[in-house]
Amino acid sequence: MSEIKALLFDVFGTVVDWRTSLIENLTAWGNAKGLKGDWTALVDGWRGAYVPSMNEVRQHPERGFVTLDDLQRQSVEPLAARLGITGLSPADFDYLARGWHRLNPWPDSVSGLTRLKKKFIIGPLSNGNVALLTNMAKHAGLPWDLVLSAEVFGHYKPDRETYLGAAKILGLKPGEVMLVAAHNNDLEAAQNFGLKTTFVPRVTEYGPHQSRDFKADGNWDYVARDFNDLADTLGC
Amino acid sequence: MSEIKALLFDVFGTVVDWRTSLIENLTAWGNAKGLKGDWTALVDGWRGAYVPSMNEVRQHPERGFVTLDDLQRQSVEPLAARLGITGLSPADFDYLARGWHRLNPWPDSVSGLTRLKKKFIIGPLSNGNVALLTNMAKHAGLPWDLVLSAEVFGHYKPDRETYLGAAKILGLKPGEVMLVAAHNNDLEAAQNFGLKTTFVPRVTEYGPHQSRDFKADGNWDYVARDFNDLADTLGC
Repeated sequence: MSEIKALLFDVFGTVVDWRTSLIENLTAWGNAKGLKGDWTALVDGWRGAYVPSMNEVRQHPERGFVTLDDLQRQSVEPLAARLGITGLSPADFDYLARGWHRLNPWPDSVSGLTRLKKKFIIGPLSNGNVALLTNMAKHAGLPWDLVLSAEVFGHYKPDRETYLGAAKILGLKPGEVMLVAAHNNDLEAAQNFGLKTTFVPRVTEYGPHQSRDFKADGNWDYVARDFNDLADTLGC
Repeated sequence: MSEIKALLFDVFGTVVDWRTSLIENLTAWGNAKGLKGDWTALVDGWRGAYVPSMNEVRQHPERGFVTLDDLQRQSVEPLAARLGITGLSPADFDYLARGWHRLNPWPDSVSGLTRLKKKFIIGPLSNGNVALLTNMAKHAGLPWDLVLSAEVFGHYKPDRETYLGAAKILGLKPGEVMLVAAHNNDLEAAQNFGLKTTFVPRVTEYGPHQSRDFKADGNWDYVARDFNDLADTLGC
């Protein structure tokens, strides 16, 4: 595995605990504002709108690429109405959408990344846009070397342009890049395009709604308990 | 100045001492390989080919964007021949071109950036390509939050797409971004497009050939002696 030069990370679920972070953040915010609402249902419904909204972008290339910030902002307003959360201003919805910039890392993320950074180029390879990923890194203390995003490639994962574009922009062969993810389908795409793969289970990502990705179900190069376990394995 | 959220840095000359680094690196390499050549003349001539080669890209958009790595690789081979440096293989020329990835920082760069990073998003905004800037950061210990490059915007500075593209991809207004550079012409373009500006003199950048940029010659927001002086001024 000495040929690996860069480790790229899926972010939502793999590096940060988006569900707990958003539920806590929005509940505290709603309480402070005196707004009533089932914030847990909002967060779960919002996450459910994520893949369909990206598919819409993929199916309509003529409309141009739409960032995840814009997709999240578009989907939250009708969702809140459907859940009976009322009285929010446009500025409130902007605040909610920016919640995806304020996510907290899993307990091992920062220490593991800090170790892995000593030996490898490390960066996100996420469907989050550059501003979101940059602000999140500042918030959570993620020590990325650089920020790679679907936005840079004009395509969302699992489109080939993201995985192969990431290797190309780093001046590397696909086999010199390893994707680290908690999602088997992301790793499957990466492997199909020639990247190395590591699965890290994050079995509480979806809380009580977790229905898959409890374990590796492909022939991945590595399976690690967490980022520090991966650092051990890779000699960092 | 409390509205400034991100500090973006010109790199060649502003953050790293390309001339001394390349002359030392190529001289040591040439000696080790038993190659005779005036490496100082090669470095100075190479730098002279840099702007014309980017102008060529600008004047021929139909050919597509060409990275700085590719431009440097193309210009070094005929230049070496002209200087009578012979016996280099294609792999040798590849090594020379990668010399731009191995540049050393000015003495204040790493400590100053480390301080500025506590309060601001920091990144390069350079004509160097992403791989070059990423490898340079690993080599030199530059603590960037993210890497912004002409390559991402498909345009070289001083094209508007680079300055305005950088603000847009960070989700910021142009006036929330400050360019830090040792080159008055770079700052002039940034200011024209609404960015804030800081001049930092690097009066030995071109060695005995330095002919300009000894001092600020525009109405820049700040003039700092070096990056630590800028950190003092900005309260970092």
